[in-house]
Amino acid sequence: MFEEIILNVRNKKPIIHNITNYVTVNDCANILLACGASPIMADAVEEVEDITKICNGLNINTGTLNNRTIQSMLVAGRKANELKNVVVLDPVGVGASEFRTKTALNLIKEVKFDVIKGNISEIKTLAFGTGNTRGVDADVCDIVTNNKINETINFVNEFAKKMKCIIVITGTIDIVSNGERAYCIYNGNKMMSDITGTGCQLSALITAFVSANIGKEFEATAVAVCSMGVAGQIAYKRLKQFDGNATYRNYIIDAIYNMNAQDLEEMVNYEIR
Amino acid sequence: MFEEIILNVRNKKPIIHNITNYVTVNDCANILLACGASPIMADAVEEVEDITKICNGLNINTGTLNNRTIQSMLVAGRKANELKNVVVLDPVGVGASEFRTKTALNLIKEVKFDVIKGNISEIKTLAFGTGNTRGVDADVCDIVTNNKINETINFVNEFAKKMKCIIVITGTIDIVSNGERAYCIYNGNKMMSDITGTGCQLSALITAFVSANIGKEFEATAVAVCSMGVAGQIAYKRLKQFDGNATYRNYIIDAIYNMNAQDLEEMVNYEIR
Amino acid sequence: MFEEIILNVRNKKPIIHNITNYVTVNDCANILLACGASPIMADAVEEVEDITKICNGLNINTGTLNNRTIQSMLVAGRKANELKNVVVLDPVGVGASEFRTKTALNLIKEVKFDVIKGNISEIKTLAFGTGNTRGVDADVCDIVTNNKINETINFVNEFAKKMKCIIVITGTIDIVSNGERAYCIYNGNKMMSDITGTGCQLSALITAFVSANIGKEFEATAVAVCSMGVAGQIAYKRLKQFDGNATYRNYIIDAIYNMNAQDLEEMVNYEIR
Repeated sequence: MFEEIILNVRNKKPIIHNITNYVTVNDCANILLACGASPIMADAVEEVEDITKICNGLNINTGTLNNRTIQSMLVAGRKANELKNVVVLDPVGVGASEFRTKTALNLIKEVKFDVIKGNISEIKTLAFGTGNTRGVDADVCDIVTNNKINETINFVNEFAKKMKCIIVITGTIDIVSNGERAYCIYNGNKMMSDITGTGCQLSALITAFVSANIGKEFEATAVAVCSMGVAGQIAYKRLKQFDGNATYRNYIIDAIYNMNAQDLEEMVNYEIR
Repeated sequence: MFEEIILNVRNKKPIIHNITNYVTVNDCANILLACGASPIMADAVEEVEDITKICNGLNINTGTLNNRTIQSMLVAGRKANELKNVVVLDPVGVGASEFRTKTALNLIKEVKFDVIKGNISEIKTLAFGTGNTRGVDADVCDIVTNNKINETINFVNEFAKKMKCIIVITGTIDIVSNGERAYCIYNGNKMMSDITGTGCQLSALITAFVSANIGKEFEATAVAVCSMGVAGQIAYKRLKQFDGNATYRNYIIDAIYNMNAQDLEEMVNYEIR
Repeated sequence: MFEEIILNVRNKKPIIHNITNYVTVNDCANILLACGASPIMADAVEEVEDITKICNGLNINTGTLNNRTIQSMLVAGRKANELKNVVVLDPVGVGASEFRTKTALNLIKEVKFDVIKGNISEIKTLAFGTGNTRGVDADVCDIVTNNKINETINFVNEFAKKMKCIIVITGTIDIVSNGERAYCIYNGNKMMSDITGTGCQLSALITAFVSANIGKEFEATAVAVCSMGVAGQIAYKRLKQFDGNATYRNYIIDAIYNMNAQDLEEMVNYEIR
């Protein structure tokens, strides 16, 4: 599974349209290039339809949204749906403000997403229509641990079924559900949360992996999540004395650049439940 | 002093709302994570009040301002004042255009800041209502040297007294004044001016340090300035042949990530005048 | 030639006003600092004239344009023309949407550029008024190879003559034409296309090099292109096991930071045709 999915990204070089935040946009572009995809960032409503037309996938991220870019998200999302392009949503910070919550709820009403990825607080906000997000990070009492993994899997399966899409919940354990089954992925390193944008980078990767693997969307999403986790582990091993989160950020992107199926298969740690 | 202040940041993990420029925003987010804080960037006027409500501090930076974000700065600033949250201003480039000067003067009229940090040209522009800034860098004839340190201290003390806040002037010597006393800080490395955004990163750090040390705002500001300077020195020592400003940028953030009170106390070089 | 041009940048420290995209803006600022210039990013229409007044050169990049910033590009461009400041255009992604194509065509009608730099697809779009760009990368059938170099040189010479400016076409072979002669530059490394923004960084460098070498605009442009290519080669040699495009990005900026005329003269590989 891993080899085929990864090689499809490298060989097909999908073009990914990103309407994303200005905080982590450079890292998203570089990680897309690292995995073999070709990024394009464009958020003017006058051009997003044209751009989406030449792309294979659309990645919408609400990190630093405003009224101008929300309009572009809706227009691009509808056009991507019309073209049957892959569309991924990363509802960054939803629950942290009424404006973000409303916007994300409207996005999932107006646009059919193939994958929605967030931390548990963000996904709960989408599921229940209201939320209590600690800034852009998951609420402590929401973090997915082994103790409540069954409960979380049930929740995510239900929500995936309702939304008719793949749902990814990131945390200590990452969960990828298609509504019937769920991958529980134990890769990653806790230092990844000391870098801004590893979540945004993952959404970009998911968009590329799914866009290059039509028909295997569920597996491609899981492989993207595994890849990011394994990259976090490879990068962590490279750290030496005095290295911190800035060097770690570079090493994660480097690890995606050098990743191959063998490394990935050796290091992945997941189960399907 | 250093240990308590630094540990308060790491333990309290203050959430810092940044309305800042798109040039250095990623570095600001990563240095906030490096010191133990949690960054959130949001500049839509529709949500800045909600965001400020869940945050401990607000960092306003005029680097790439526009009419939309200026409105958000004012709304967020007033809300933070109402909540008695910490508010820091980095008036980047004030004096370089009438628009920036007007905006910054209006900000300091409408919002009560706890700390204002700039180079000498920027702070003079705020103090005198007009200025002559060489782009975003300090005017050569304005640079703080040992020769005119007394004159500069008098100026900054007066301005801090007038503004009823802490004023930080960065330069070869950094000065932190509460209107009565001034820290003169001799840390840092001149190569720091070869990286974009070390000033913006410092403002972000100050916001985090002050937000986690209510009641010790003056000391916390000085410790933030010392930390940035010492990080510049630690990072400089790590540089090898072929390394330049990009590697140096990463190493400075890394140094903040690894900083502890012992390192800091060994390396700080300041006096209170 | 190389020594004089490089030293002029380091000694004159030109201030460069950039109206550019939010994806690669940080790298543009850092590479400008690396070569000895001083960057300022400002895109509010209310201030771009003031900013351009204190600058030596203006770099316009259409990477993530919108109606607000297009207005600023036009206003800043006209003011720079009036002041006889250097103005450079990087028409990123032109041809990928009607909106970008129209905007770029209007820019070259309303503003007199000293240098226009793009890949072959982008420059053809400007020349023929319509285009077929694969996202932000050159169309495969358009890539400049040795086989069609003569044809490409003829095209670029004609277009440079018509536009009365210097045209740079980047690719495996970079071509710099003033309408009469063309530098064919064989430096660079193919891994440079695995990083976002090496093209944007080159435009920023060109603006700095030309601004500091008035009267030698053609040579300064060629030296900037050679410098970027040589930096790509120096950086590539530094890569070790596990390094990828993120580390490579840092090393390229580092190489510009450390570049001197001797290195450059030893490594350049060009001919004038």
